[in-house]
Amino acid sequence: MLFMRRPSGTVAPGAFFPFQKYRMSTAPSFKPFKLALIQLGSIGPDKSANLKRAYEMVLKVAGGDGSAGSKPSLVVLPECFNSPYGRVSKYAETIGFTKADDIEVQTCQSESVRMLSSAAKEANIWLVGGSIPERDADNKFYKTCTVYSPTGALVAMHRKVHLFDIDIPGKITLKESKMISGGSSMNFFDTEFARIGLGICHDVRFPELAMISARRGCHMLIYPGAFNLTTGPLHWSLLQRARAVDNQVFFAMCSPARDMSARYHAWGHSMVVDPFGKILAEAEEGQGVVQVSIGEGAPCMCDY
Amino acid sequence: MLFMRRPSGTVAPGAFFPFQKYRMSTAPSFKPFKLALIQLGSIGPDKSANLKRAYEMVLKVAGGDGSAGSKPSLVVLPECFNSPYGRVSKYAETIGFTKADDIEVQTCQSESVRMLSSAAKEANIWLVGGSIPERDADNKFYKTCTVYSPTGALVAMHRKVHLFDIDIPGKITLKESKMISGGSSMNFFDTEFARIGLGICHDVRFPELAMISARRGCHMLIYPGAFNLTTGPLHWSLLQRARAVDNQVFFAMCSPARDMSARYHAWGHSMVVDPFGKILAEAEEGQGVVQVSIGEGAPCMCDY
Repeated sequence: MLFMRRPSGTVAPGAFFPFQKYRMSTAPSFKPFKLALIQLGSIGPDKSANLKRAYEMVLKVAGGDGSAGSKPSLVVLPECFNSPYGRVSKYAETIGFTKADDIEVQTCQSESVRMLSSAAKEANIWLVGGSIPERDADNKFYKTCTVYSPTGALVAMHRKVHLFDIDIPGKITLKESKMISGGSSMNFFDTEFARIGLGICHDVRFPELAMISARRGCHMLIYPGAFNLTTGPLHWSLLQRARAVDNQVFFAMCSPARDMSARYHAWGHSMVVDPFGKILAEAEEGQGVVQVSIGEGAPCMCDY
Repeated sequence: MLFMRRPSGTVAPGAFFPFQKYRMSTAPSFKPFKLALIQLGSIGPDKSANLKRAYEMVLKVAGGDGSAGSKPSLVVLPECFNSPYGRVSKYAETIGFTKADDIEVQTCQSESVRMLSSAAKEANIWLVGGSIPERDADNKFYKTCTVYSPTGALVAMHRKVHLFDIDIPGKITLKESKMISGGSSMNFFDTEFARIGLGICHDVRFPELAMISARRGCHMLIYPGAFNLTTGPLHWSLLQRARAVDNQVFFAMCSPARDMSARYHAWGHSMVVDPFGKILAEAEEGQGVVQVSIGEGAPCMCDY
């Protein structure tokens, strides 16, 4: 597996990378690995129940299907997996830190963070914890993705940078910027198989974030996201394929399952795309798991 | 027609814009207009014959179909319309200038430039003259797009920036960088209906060019191009749709018709895409003309 057409150019080091240890580091060598996206369904108003179901799904998926080598190395949960879309202030938790390595996760105020850390450790997998509503010390809200190593350490956080404001008369109206603040950093983490960049949902419409991640050495970008029945059919796959081809990276988005009884109707269709822009795997709209071998048997990435 | 989601950010003024008068100017207001792409066929080794056919096609297309209001305001020829793909040194012409407004086009050494100017003037249309092989004073070669106003004035030039080197064993091998040099400027032109940015073929794989054009106020980007039977099915429409959506512009690429007796087999499928990423019109592989009303009745471009 080669990544030959890395766009040229440099990105100034600095505050854009809050995780100091990655700031100017060399990416690990890419090795093929197994990825699982959990398109979680039935996310209701009971946060404890949502967390329990997410926890059980992570452990179930990490158990593999019993065949040799089927266990995923990396598991991904969707945007808004612990509470209904758009209900930020009611469900927000205090994470209380922005630098990952300094803290003892099990002392964290956030029950979602504690659960995710435990799940990653018990399942012995890398875990991208979708997104949860976060409240900071200044009482500002964010939509935040946290990532855990197989030892349960919190290794990266990403606060959604680009907020989703939409007003299509008769179709959908939503002003995320009235509810939350945008993050101001881009973020990635290193595993033993790849450097992986983070974004959340609407971030995918802004190509700069993916370009910077790729130029920082990311082999894959993972954006938990929840498009809807208007934007999904228009652009869900187009944007992922474009980011993948333009930046010569693997790209995945993990959505909640569609629930027509919820206020926000997620598109579903969690998806993994290769650097050719080929869709390697795609869920339908219901609850399900997308499992893919990343980089195994993929053709050489040539400059075309 | 509104273009609401113009990406933020600035581009430093300077040498990247050789056409001084556009350097920091305000784009004209967008007005709906009619566009025609000529997917020219039967481009053989006889340059005079190729030029004659291109000239006749421009005049024919500009004549409209006889119905009121059908005449296009802007006509586009494909990449390599005056000679076979890849035969640069044999067919190269000296244009002899790089700034458009200073010269009397009919004194130009290039017979292709003289023909294109005449065709634009006689047809009373804006004309994007696909690409021709160009030789400069230092005996370097380029693939060059020239653009003409309805008075026959040469108003813009673009030398293909990103050269097409490909080596897929058993499928296609080509090293454009052995034959020509890459241009070093980005270019656009203003009409009474829109500001239009230029690129050629492989330039479409490098999103920066389109991003800069859009931030400079371009409403539409037009890239004459000739993908092939390997790259065409993979990425021809994906890249155009991505550029259109990411930058909230109209996007078009004009290909030669497919000729399986030629050494290079063009993909065809000349195409026009709107800022939603919707394909407004698409040719098949044979000779044909794509005619589209740009911006007429299109929905408001909302931020989603």
